[in-house]
Amino acid sequence: MIKVGIIGATGYAGVEIVRLIQQHKEAEVIWYGSRSYVDQNYGDVFRNMFKIVDAKCLDDNMEKLADEVDVIFTATPQGLCGSLVTEEILNKVKIIDLSADFRIKDVATYEKWYGIKHQSPQFIDEAVYGLCEINRDKVKGARLIANPGCYTTCSILSIYPLAKEGLIDPKSIIVDAKSGTSGAGRGAKVPNLFCEVNENIKAYGVTTHRHTPEIEEQLSYAAGEEVIINFTPHLVPMQRGILVTAYANLKKKVTYDEVRAIYDKYYGNEFFIRVLDKDVCPETRWVEGSNFVDVNFKIDERTGRIIMMGALDNLIKGAAGQAVQNMNLLFGLEENEGLKQVPMFP
Amino acid sequence: MIKVGIIGATGYAGVEIVRLIQQHKEAEVIWYGSRSYVDQNYGDVFRNMFKIVDAKCLDDNMEKLADEVDVIFTATPQGLCGSLVTEEILNKVKIIDLSADFRIKDVATYEKWYGIKHQSPQFIDEAVYGLCEINRDKVKGARLIANPGCYTTCSILSIYPLAKEGLIDPKSIIVDAKSGTSGAGRGAKVPNLFCEVNENIKAYGVTTHRHTPEIEEQLSYAAGEEVIINFTPHLVPMQRGILVTAYANLKKKVTYDEVRAIYDKYYGNEFFIRVLDKDVCPETRWVEGSNFVDVNFKIDERTGRIIMMGALDNLIKGAAGQAVQNMNLLFGLEENEGLKQVPMFP
Amino acid sequence: MIKVGIIGATGYAGVEIVRLIQQHKEAEVIWYGSRSYVDQNYGDVFRNMFKIVDAKCLDDNMEKLADEVDVIFTATPQGLCGSLVTEEILNKVKIIDLSADFRIKDVATYEKWYGIKHQSPQFIDEAVYGLCEINRDKVKGARLIANPGCYTTCSILSIYPLAKEGLIDPKSIIVDAKSGTSGAGRGAKVPNLFCEVNENIKAYGVTTHRHTPEIEEQLSYAAGEEVIINFTPHLVPMQRGILVTAYANLKKKVTYDEVRAIYDKYYGNEFFIRVLDKDVCPETRWVEGSNFVDVNFKIDERTGRIIMMGALDNLIKGAAGQAVQNMNLLFGLEENEGLKQVPMFP
Amino acid sequence: MIKVGIIGATGYAGVEIVRLIQQHKEAEVIWYGSRSYVDQNYGDVFRNMFKIVDAKCLDDNMEKLADEVDVIFTATPQGLCGSLVTEEILNKVKIIDLSADFRIKDVATYEKWYGIKHQSPQFIDEAVYGLCEINRDKVKGARLIANPGCYTTCSILSIYPLAKEGLIDPKSIIVDAKSGTSGAGRGAKVPNLFCEVNENIKAYGVTTHRHTPEIEEQLSYAAGEEVIINFTPHLVPMQRGILVTAYANLKKKVTYDEVRAIYDKYYGNEFFIRVLDKDVCPETRWVEGSNFVDVNFKIDERTGRIIMMGALDNLIKGAAGQAVQNMNLLFGLEENEGLKQVPMFP
Repeated sequence: MIKVGIIGATGYAGVEIVRLIQQHKEAEVIWYGSRSYVDQNYGDVFRNMFKIVDAKCLDDNMEKLADEVDVIFTATPQGLCGSLVTEEILNKVKIIDLSADFRIKDVATYEKWYGIKHQSPQFIDEAVYGLCEINRDKVKGARLIANPGCYTTCSILSIYPLAKEGLIDPKSIIVDAKSGTSGAGRGAKVPNLFCEVNENIKAYGVTTHRHTPEIEEQLSYAAGEEVIINFTPHLVPMQRGILVTAYANLKKKVTYDEVRAIYDKYYGNEFFIRVLDKDVCPETRWVEGSNFVDVNFKIDERTGRIIMMGALDNLIKGAAGQAVQNMNLLFGLEENEGLKQVPMFP
Repeated sequence: MIKVGIIGATGYAGVEIVRLIQQHKEAEVIWYGSRSYVDQNYGDVFRNMFKIVDAKCLDDNMEKLADEVDVIFTATPQGLCGSLVTEEILNKVKIIDLSADFRIKDVATYEKWYGIKHQSPQFIDEAVYGLCEINRDKVKGARLIANPGCYTTCSILSIYPLAKEGLIDPKSIIVDAKSGTSGAGRGAKVPNLFCEVNENIKAYGVTTHRHTPEIEEQLSYAAGEEVIINFTPHLVPMQRGILVTAYANLKKKVTYDEVRAIYDKYYGNEFFIRVLDKDVCPETRWVEGSNFVDVNFKIDERTGRIIMMGALDNLIKGAAGQAVQNMNLLFGLEENEGLKQVPMFP
Repeated sequence: MIKVGIIGATGYAGVEIVRLIQQHKEAEVIWYGSRSYVDQNYGDVFRNMFKIVDAKCLDDNMEKLADEVDVIFTATPQGLCGSLVTEEILNKVKIIDLSADFRIKDVATYEKWYGIKHQSPQFIDEAVYGLCEINRDKVKGARLIANPGCYTTCSILSIYPLAKEGLIDPKSIIVDAKSGTSGAGRGAKVPNLFCEVNENIKAYGVTTHRHTPEIEEQLSYAAGEEVIINFTPHLVPMQRGILVTAYANLKKKVTYDEVRAIYDKYYGNEFFIRVLDKDVCPETRWVEGSNFVDVNFKIDERTGRIIMMGALDNLIKGAAGQAVQNMNLLFGLEENEGLKQVPMFP
Repeated sequence: MIKVGIIGATGYAGVEIVRLIQQHKEAEVIWYGSRSYVDQNYGDVFRNMFKIVDAKCLDDNMEKLADEVDVIFTATPQGLCGSLVTEEILNKVKIIDLSADFRIKDVATYEKWYGIKHQSPQFIDEAVYGLCEINRDKVKGARLIANPGCYTTCSILSIYPLAKEGLIDPKSIIVDAKSGTSGAGRGAKVPNLFCEVNENIKAYGVTTHRHTPEIEEQLSYAAGEEVIINFTPHLVPMQRGILVTAYANLKKKVTYDEVRAIYDKYYGNEFFIRVLDKDVCPETRWVEGSNFVDVNFKIDERTGRIIMMGALDNLIKGAAGQAVQNMNLLFGLEENEGLKQVPMFP
């Protein structure tokens, strides 16, 4: 059994890792790290785990943890993983970091968009961007995985095939994204109260959201040239789910079949990516509770644009599920072990 | 592999059976019955099943079905199962009926509360009321299972230990229940539209709801005397979940420890029933997506009453999950096979 | 114009007072008291008021306020109003207290259920319990109004006619209440986050909720004998609304018409109380955004009980609207001035 | 008093007209037209109106109606108003059509996007597009008002000043819109059930939504050249509200102050349009229950684009409120009579 430690086990991504590992045949969580709930029973903090998890929350201690587990998931705010990781730790244990610390290769870009100083720039080059469907081979041999952001995973996977094949103008991409509220975390803040979120939709972080450079960097690798985008996230009164509606100018006239062939080329064999039938739009409800990403596209001949759409569960494929998928790759397991849940509806 | 046929596979309980069987190691659905969607791909009706279920919906045909499957789940309106079942069919196949047709032993009571004539009264005596935790042994040898109602399961399991032990006045029981909207089914009706349900709570069926006699009958068996209750269901703007708050007069003074011991006596070894810690109230979110029932109680010395509470997922323990649990018992499998899902939060 | 000051103007009840007074012909708010937002523009805290209210939030200062306004609304936590009010202040200004400080006549009861020491017991006798439909005449001449609780208003008005007429057993009353989340206030607490409240229902404060003695006291006055109840509040994933489902044993057999006549006797001429037609259950959506209370009842001959139901908007008739109604009475205005809003649906 | 007749009084827009007129000093509804509920009490269909509206629903009869009322609101599906209006009727009564029948000047465009034949092309030229803030003077003298669509009003008002001033490339505009579910109407359809809408977001009508040509036509008038857009609507799990996030390429470098001055030029004196402070994004909750539109913009120097945002209540400024605003203009009343409601929060 792979021994798993989680730092940040009492956030929404943390509890989702716990839930997924519970259903994983070859891994078990042995360290429930949580500064806020030290010594409390995990099953009292998250009562869905009552009588299922019998363990107390532990304070952070990465050195000790590195001695006891095979893989550490850091589901923590930006900066924490970067401040704790060392060469010694990386020699002992795999790290899958769900924060942004190692996602962006250019330190200056990271520091500009996140507004904090990077504590471990020496590991940035080594870190592998854990978008499994694209970087599968690199993930397999890594010590340190930068698990992609939720908006990012959905945005990149929706656009990737067309960026890669050079079908769209890399300066024309606009990503309008919508997220459920679990993406805002479990912090006790007025804007996240039920009465503030419910019966409301709003854009936020317009032109300044931190996932922007991450999407741009990865799409630039795909396109082989610089991609600059507009990225606008919105908060939706639902718990889970991200929907991406992306727009780009087509470089030339294309047919549905041509574009469809491109999506199939990249995703036809992917277990977790479902290219929908013609004219069917992705909806978050159809992926909720699963590691699937549903994608599709629509060509608009009137405007010469293509609309690319994607939907995923932000806590699973957008966080914990992808982290487990990375773990599976790191340890040579079936990539979908523990992740075969069928989406739950309604 | 156990071959499963579902009549009513495109209702909310139906799709939940499909989802659970997908994750069951020893059963597979081979017949997706749905009058409304004949010849349509199941994965187009419920897109969560897209690329997971590759089958078309079939019209009802119980005789043919009986030849092809090992067990039939009827997730259909009242009256249908009763109108289709025959001795010949029962000799070929197990039937788990999710409707109310065989739940009530007294035909007159059934016909009065449901307002329809019973088509197969000859099978009522034989049918086993499939509340597994209480009728486990009877279920094992049955041909025909009357799968309990959602409100009923939650109400009975919350009250059962105290009724059984004679601690509460059987004429004093009041059950105030609250249900998510999936309990209202998938019919296209104005009262179930989003804008009619959302931001609203209402009681309905006050003094006349059909689950009343079912709860009374089962609690009467437990108490060994006639139980008459008030049962008031409410519609809550959420998708899943039933919460029961039940009140009864205590026959004598009791302590927390005494009552706790009684709950533990009946439920201490039950996998799916979790008796919560002192003063912790059941909440639907902590059981959502699972077959668990969370129960607890609170003694009120001021009024001499006890408040008994329970929470479950109406589509799982209140319908599809319990049906699969019954299937497991019928076929001699582990009772929790395919039902070990951890509740999903948030 | 009546000059209004609000202490606690940035809570949910506070902003609702502001909204209602905006639409009131003879009153205007001139003091927006808020410790947490001192010097911030009120229209920046609550952007619904942007360009409508042009004023800054001010710190609490009851003496100064008493010199400048005609009436003070205290929409604050328990204990604050009691700690600030003095004879001198009451000689200058009317006070309508939305907290519980002056609702309960027996100090010991207050201190037991609220767990704090009362700071101004000398004013308790004088304070008038501002349930307008019942205490209208007393309200008119008062200096200090104890504005009733939200659960309380709904519970009392649902039960009052039958308690008053002695039709129900005063020891048999059970009040099962359901509230929208705005009742939990605007404090930044994890249990009130969207992802914790949404898709969930729970009971809380079982046998211990502070509105219990308030309901008991008022119903005891009505019944002319001691009333002891069970009161169980529940949190519902919606913003506004309280629904009460109350149960009591009938002392004798009664017909629908007899009970209906009793409700009509007390409420037939009340503008804000709507007794619904036979068999129609109150629903919170039909009163949302208004000062109405919808009530009805159902007799259950099988159990000898009556089910009494009521619905109101917790922020209006359950708080701010009733406070304005009290203000209207205090200043000799039309009782429904500023309160004629039609419920908003959907 | 202006006598008002409504055809389609039992849809969501219809009941909102009724509610607004209830609070209007100089108008009253005397005809509640509803094919589906003929002879039923209006207050039984919409119980918010119980004891407020005392009238029965009547069948459609435009001739009779024209004799009895001063203004007819048609809140009906596309095609109905066009099939009923005649010269004789228009000589007797003002018509405010909430459907799309007279919004689009080019019949072929109407017939192509709506897929039905226009029944009264002879009145299209005469009809005035009732976007009050832009066509105020034309509205005043009209007989027939084409009341704008909900998405359309929000989209146009967000973009209008910059289109009018020629600051943006008219071929680069992308409108990504999000709507509450009341916009989908009150028809009993499975996709609008609570369990299908809740906890979900989806795009629909991608590249084909009928509001597209309406937005294009009006923005083309403003820009003085042809505007072609991408318009993508999304369904959000909330009852009311439309949020528009629109993107366009700036023709030249501009500063915040320059753009702000343009918005102020057009909207500075408008009662119902609130240009928000710098960096504040519109949110639907802050306009809910009111006729306000909140707009703002953000310049993105990195991409050379401007993001224009708007929020309104789809049933008020997006339908019934704008219709009443048009009525006020038609009859020479204060434009905001009956429409001064402050947004209701939470």
